[in-house]
Amino acid sequence: MPRPKIDYNEIAGQKPNRIEELSDGVFSIAMTLLVLDLKVPAQDIIHSEGDIWQALGRLTPSLISYALGFMTLGIFWVGQSTQFSYIERSNRGYAWIHIFFLLAVGLMPFTTSFLNAHIQYKTAIAVYYGNLVLAGWTLYISLVYAERYELTNFERDNPEHQAVMIALKRRLVYSQALYMLGASLCFFNTYLSIGFILLVQLNYALGISDWKRK
Amino acid sequence: MPRPKIDYNEIAGQKPNRIEELSDGVFSIAMTLLVLDLKVPAQDIIHSEGDIWQALGRLTPSLISYALGFMTLGIFWVGQSTQFSYIERSNRGYAWIHIFFLLAVGLMPFTTSFLNAHIQYKTAIAVYYGNLVLAGWTLYISLVYAERYELTNFERDNPEHQAVMIALKRRLVYSQALYMLGASLCFFNTYLSIGFILLVQLNYALGISDWKRK
Amino acid sequence: MPRPKIDYNEIAGQKPNRIEELSDGVFSIAMTLLVLDLKVPAQDIIHSEGDIWQALGRLTPSLISYALGFMTLGIFWVGQSTQFSYIERSNRGYAWIHIFFLLAVGLMPFTTSFLNAHIQYKTAIAVYYGNLVLAGWTLYISLVYAERYELTNFERDNPEHQAVMIALKRRLVYSQALYMLGASLCFFNTYLSIGFILLVQLNYALGISDWKRK
Amino acid sequence: MPRPKIDYNEIAGQKPNRIEELSDGVFSIAMTLLVLDLKVPAQDIIHSEGDIWQALGRLTPSLISYALGFMTLGIFWVGQSTQFSYIERSNRGYAWIHIFFLLAVGLMPFTTSFLNAHIQYKTAIAVYYGNLVLAGWTLYISLVYAERYELTNFERDNPEHQAVMIALKRRLVYSQALYMLGASLCFFNTYLSIGFILLVQLNYALGISDWKRK
Repeated sequence: MPRPKIDYNEIAGQKPNRIEELSDGVFSIAMTLLVLDLKVPAQDIIHSEGDIWQALGRLTPSLISYALGFMTLGIFWVGQSTQFSYIERSNRGYAWIHIFFLLAVGLMPFTTSFLNAHIQYKTAIAVYYGNLVLAGWTLYISLVYAERYELTNFERDNPEHQAVMIALKRRLVYSQALYMLGASLCFFNTYLSIGFILLVQLNYALGISDWKRK
Repeated sequence: MPRPKIDYNEIAGQKPNRIEELSDGVFSIAMTLLVLDLKVPAQDIIHSEGDIWQALGRLTPSLISYALGFMTLGIFWVGQSTQFSYIERSNRGYAWIHIFFLLAVGLMPFTTSFLNAHIQYKTAIAVYYGNLVLAGWTLYISLVYAERYELTNFERDNPEHQAVMIALKRRLVYSQALYMLGASLCFFNTYLSIGFILLVQLNYALGISDWKRK
Repeated sequence: MPRPKIDYNEIAGQKPNRIEELSDGVFSIAMTLLVLDLKVPAQDIIHSEGDIWQALGRLTPSLISYALGFMTLGIFWVGQSTQFSYIERSNRGYAWIHIFFLLAVGLMPFTTSFLNAHIQYKTAIAVYYGNLVLAGWTLYISLVYAERYELTNFERDNPEHQAVMIALKRRLVYSQALYMLGASLCFFNTYLSIGFILLVQLNYALGISDWKRK
Repeated sequence: MPRPKIDYNEIAGQKPNRIEELSDGVFSIAMTLLVLDLKVPAQDIIHSEGDIWQALGRLTPSLISYALGFMTLGIFWVGQSTQFSYIERSNRGYAWIHIFFLLAVGLMPFTTSFLNAHIQYKTAIAVYYGNLVLAGWTLYISLVYAERYELTNFERDNPEHQAVMIALKRRLVYSQALYMLGASLCFFNTYLSIGFILLVQLNYALGISDWKRK
């Protein structure tokens, strides 16, 4: 009996639960690294309760930035874990698309901190927005890939399969359109732009647009 | 056959084990980041064993602060994992309540370090206490939510279900009441206040109030 | 039918796999934080290949310290995961003993870095040794506790149960005895002391004492 | 009945899923720590959009270095998780080989940052290449060990087993040969050397050499 010949690429990256575990690791670290941007005010500048209140005032943008970063990561985490609740198999390509997605996720603490430090400049908005684009579209690509290589736990012609895929894709396309709108507002005013993106994130986090239906 | 229409929000965040994994990640990182507050004394100020002992003396408040932070995170971790041992399903809202809970957990290294640096100021106690309130009440809300949307592994009218829910809620309400009492002691003395909170945490960690019963 | 009354402490911390996940998180972070002690030499002091070689020479103690820290954490990780392969149930007390064990694990990057910076002082050895003692004995206590509250997957009078428990305890007692011997060598010479501990760790990591039997 | 005598080393490290969890933790942290090398430009040097563009220009090598580091870690992660999809049992030796593999993985943020800071020096290439060698050969050794101690989910004389093992080993040997070739190019030019390694990583990440077959 001839020995079968196997190529590494055919057998690599086949366990979806390992991708999920790696992702939970990267997300939880990226979330927690955001806190490193919050610097405790030095002891030698604090001489009264009033000084602390002033220091807290100066920290407020960083706190908002922490909350924004956490929510953004939360939105992408919910998006990815929702996708994985329909994934049954994996392969090399699917694993790598998620590694590139995680590359974008791991950049978030940097781009959030960048935005926080230079919020008055359009370029800082562009850097942050570029990160949202990278994360969103790698997630979209992974969805298309999963469909094409039949990695989901549905039969391909199951109508529910198509409905789920459409729901997942629509959410990504809608949110990216809103981010693009928000980012383009920076040509008027950078605070308006980031305020709009913050409202979009709050809407997704709190599910506000869903309240009427209930 | 018409294709069913599915909304993203109906299908998002349905895997409780992913929330558990993300939480274990955030907790373990927050716990370990606490250690970054412990600075190794620089080589150029240490010229004898006596210098090291003095440096260790100066590190003692940071070591207590590390232990306090670890215990506080441990208490919330035990609280959340106990809740999850009764959770069978999840949905989008439940996932997001826990993301906000983790946002509070992720702040702990910052508020603990803040308290450690400025323990003589009431405002530092308030910042730390605010973090305990945020973590405690998001956990409480997640419990109420799980009950309302029937996410637990009990039938709703099972008397044991109600007894478990009451035990979980009572623990959260009692501990929050004790934190509030402790925090309000800062109007007398901030060390008294933090000492009281430390004793509360030690009590919960060591289960002292439970010893008599055994 | 009267509603049953349940106390929080009876139902807390019952999922051993959550303790395992939290532990894997803390261990992996503590291991990876060790690398932060390795500082890349600044660009302005490097002007030739020779300068880099000199910089690498100065980094050598830190690299040894990184390897020592990684091995020490590896030894405790293997010890804890071996224990957990016999654990079937958990309770509140058992969870808390492991949280205190993780508190000691989380201190390792600090005590390793402390030792690395001040290796010529007995007190630095004492600090490092104190960390080994704390980690070792909390693990020992968790073992005794698991036996007493019958948390293992053995029947209590199963002779294999007793043999496993004895093997696990003996390993902890032996290694602690060797650490104590190593630490006490610091009264002769601190480098001798740490060299001895390094050899003990290498022995456990490589399983040298086990080679003859195979 | 005589009590059986058990040696610790016989029972240690027997749960492969714990090794996987620890690995996912170390990989995700090493990946995310890479971002710490990206420093947000200080506010006092940025006075216009032009200044930000210049700062981004200066950050470009660090961004490439981040992407290179992420891909390199991704390649080793895919390699290790592919191996684990054939592992059914574990033992003490196998666990320790993977701990040494993780020691090499945990060094990556340091060696990547070292390379980024001193890319014009051959020694920096050597340091980075040394890390690739350490990670690659520990992974190779773990494969040989798994075969020898029959830890896989195949019968030993199953021809598919041999084909899988050959595919896994060949990938490691090929990639190490390419790294060696790339590293030796530094005797001509260090940028050429690192450019070659970058292309090798891109090839493995994107699976380019696999495109023709599809």
